[in-house]
Amino acid sequence: MNSIDKLIEIFSKFPGIGPRQARRFVYHLLTRANGALEELAYHIKNLKVDIAVCDDCQRFFQLHHTSKQEGSPHVCDVCSNKTRDHTILMIVQRDIDLESVEKNDEFNGIYFVLGGSVPILEKEPEKRIRIKKLKEFINLRQAQDKEQKIKEIILGVNWNPEGENTGDYVAKELKSITDKYKIKITHLGKGLSMGAELEYTDSDTLKNALKNRS
Amino acid sequence: MNSIDKLIEIFSKFPGIGPRQARRFVYHLLTRANGALEELAYHIKNLKVDIAVCDDCQRFFQLHHTSKQEGSPHVCDVCSNKTRDHTILMIVQRDIDLESVEKNDEFNGIYFVLGGSVPILEKEPEKRIRIKKLKEFINLRQAQDKEQKIKEIILGVNWNPEGENTGDYVAKELKSITDKYKIKITHLGKGLSMGAELEYTDSDTLKNALKNRS
Amino acid sequence: MNSIDKLIEIFSKFPGIGPRQARRFVYHLLTRANGALEELAYHIKNLKVDIAVCDDCQRFFQLHHTSKQEGSPHVCDVCSNKTRDHTILMIVQRDIDLESVEKNDEFNGIYFVLGGSVPILEKEPEKRIRIKKLKEFINLRQAQDKEQKIKEIILGVNWNPEGENTGDYVAKELKSITDKYKIKITHLGKGLSMGAELEYTDSDTLKNALKNRS
Amino acid sequence: MNSIDKLIEIFSKFPGIGPRQARRFVYHLLTRANGALEELAYHIKNLKVDIAVCDDCQRFFQLHHTSKQEGSPHVCDVCSNKTRDHTILMIVQRDIDLESVEKNDEFNGIYFVLGGSVPILEKEPEKRIRIKKLKEFINLRQAQDKEQKIKEIILGVNWNPEGENTGDYVAKELKSITDKYKIKITHLGKGLSMGAELEYTDSDTLKNALKNRS
Repeated sequence: MNSIDKLIEIFSKFPGIGPRQARRFVYHLLTRANGALEELAYHIKNLKVDIAVCDDCQRFFQLHHTSKQEGSPHVCDVCSNKTRDHTILMIVQRDIDLESVEKNDEFNGIYFVLGGSVPILEKEPEKRIRIKKLKEFINLRQAQDKEQKIKEIILGVNWNPEGENTGDYVAKELKSITDKYKIKITHLGKGLSMGAELEYTDSDTLKNALKNRS
Repeated sequence: MNSIDKLIEIFSKFPGIGPRQARRFVYHLLTRANGALEELAYHIKNLKVDIAVCDDCQRFFQLHHTSKQEGSPHVCDVCSNKTRDHTILMIVQRDIDLESVEKNDEFNGIYFVLGGSVPILEKEPEKRIRIKKLKEFINLRQAQDKEQKIKEIILGVNWNPEGENTGDYVAKELKSITDKYKIKITHLGKGLSMGAELEYTDSDTLKNALKNRS
Repeated sequence: MNSIDKLIEIFSKFPGIGPRQARRFVYHLLTRANGALEELAYHIKNLKVDIAVCDDCQRFFQLHHTSKQEGSPHVCDVCSNKTRDHTILMIVQRDIDLESVEKNDEFNGIYFVLGGSVPILEKEPEKRIRIKKLKEFINLRQAQDKEQKIKEIILGVNWNPEGENTGDYVAKELKSITDKYKIKITHLGKGLSMGAELEYTDSDTLKNALKNRS
Repeated sequence: MNSIDKLIEIFSKFPGIGPRQARRFVYHLLTRANGALEELAYHIKNLKVDIAVCDDCQRFFQLHHTSKQEGSPHVCDVCSNKTRDHTILMIVQRDIDLESVEKNDEFNGIYFVLGGSVPILEKEPEKRIRIKKLKEFINLRQAQDKEQKIKEIILGVNWNPEGENTGDYVAKELKSITDKYKIKITHLGKGLSMGAELEYTDSDTLKNALKNRS
């Protein structure tokens, strides 16, 4: 298979991209200078060289070269930030969700990235998300000095069947730990989202908007 | 102006309808039988004959002919329903909002329809909504026997600038009454609405989802 | 059934309108003054009083009261316009198509409105469109004085399966007449429409764009 | 700038891709195995190694290794195909347009890819498209043996202001040559495109559909 067809095949697997747009990408690249292609290839090839997975929250993050010395743990800016509240842990499905919450600048706690979600009826959920690593992380924190201890876990999952299922699975798996350490499990508030009009609000949202009125 | 152009003009004022679709409506009518046109005309002309405005919630409702005798007050099914909780009053902007909440069958209290909303910077808000009638209604209820007394007022407004402004205006106007009678004013819960994905959730919604977590 | 529900039912049958928007129409009407409702009802009821079907092209048109005297034929502005070329007849499916062509002001011939279209596999096509009236009209014209004789018939149908099928049916039905009077049958040109980009042009359109190149 | 941000920047320049989707691409890549990234990088870096620009039509095409020997001209499958009609030359703006026409399998002539288009008011159009190479190619062909001589040039441009402007510019530039060799210049047919309904057809398209009726 030649490079054009091969790239069309690869780009077609990019999120939200079909064969037609993948082909347009290839023609776009063909019109670029060789230098530009080499630069793109370089950054793709070396993408993970500069990137580490945070030992704590498991997100991808850019390595600071200072922290590259031997044996140093890899911890991201958020997890290593002492000014944040390490007693509140938000569990999210993907890096992109963490980014979204950070961008909105409304949350000062810490995160854990599951790295996926648990589809309904999934037989081996433990292979879909980092549930084992999550337990280890929480246990580790609870064994540590007081002000690092986790007091609340927010299930920061999407409100759709797969997200809800993921949240339920995590809560179930963590039950023994959260019971043992008296960690409160919370869910993000449900209700009207910005721009909502009552006329067009679905039943489930409205029910929660009423329940959560204040 | 002839009937075709006149009808196009009138239909163009229907919610969400432009001149082109208004014209299609007219051609649709032209292909109908005379009987169908007369029937439509009849029901439009007599629309309000069968309809009354509820003395309590101010909604439009279908008259029961039994209740048409002289001097009888006009009260809708909801307001005259003794099994509902008359101590919780939800204030909505329009009839269609009331219908939406009723359809979803999540609320067992009573309503008051403002009949509109208050745009930002509106100079004469009292002309936009039934604020005077609302005060009268609440005062009347508080003067009545105990189990009819209102204990909570839910501001069931849309979450957009005009809706928020309407809610603020109503709360301000009702302050002396709610203080006097110790009526709690509440807002519908804000947060993730059904189908929400964190990646695409706006800052204001996320902030409320965090604040209202439980 | 009460007027509200009845009107919702009727409006739901308007082109492109669903029950939800039909309901919004009714609430829109409920907020109108009685005078406005009576005016709307009046124009709907009398819609066809002012309207006649053109004896020639069969379109709906506004009657000029001058032409209302006894026994006068009802002919629309286009058909009665001597400055137009009565030798070229464009056959269209609906009044709205005729309006569209007239609005664009590109055609100086005359029209005939079929009043519908012929679905694929339709067993009784003659009941779907005014094919009988069309034949009568053409025969009448050919029997008349020279400069009124039709020399060309343009099949002004939509380019979709039902439109093509309608055109084919009309051509087949007219064959004996067009052969007898040597009337040319033509189709609207097919090819690139405004805004077309080759990259996204479908095969059938491109094939015609090539065939019709000039 | 780190690899993530750099890739987001590069992907954001891909056709039809914004910063948000570019970011999703990067996270997609982060979840791929190193082998997959290296493969992608390899094919991007080597994209042009396997690719040559056709000496005749100027399109990009996959090299056949047999044709790689020294000094051999690089000619694509279409241009080297003797069964095609080399007397009809279709000029297109981009490779993707050529692919689109080829895919539709309606054209048996040859192509020339301008490699771009000429914006309205462009001061240096000759720098936007391969007009010089086009003239050379045509002159070369006319100097050759009879059956290779070009008899018709189809301006296969998009029907939008930039496409029309490009076609006009090319026609103007080629005038002396086409006059000298009596080469006919044609445009793709304009009219109804598949799915078109008269009711929604714009004026320019309708005008051409009428002009090109047959």
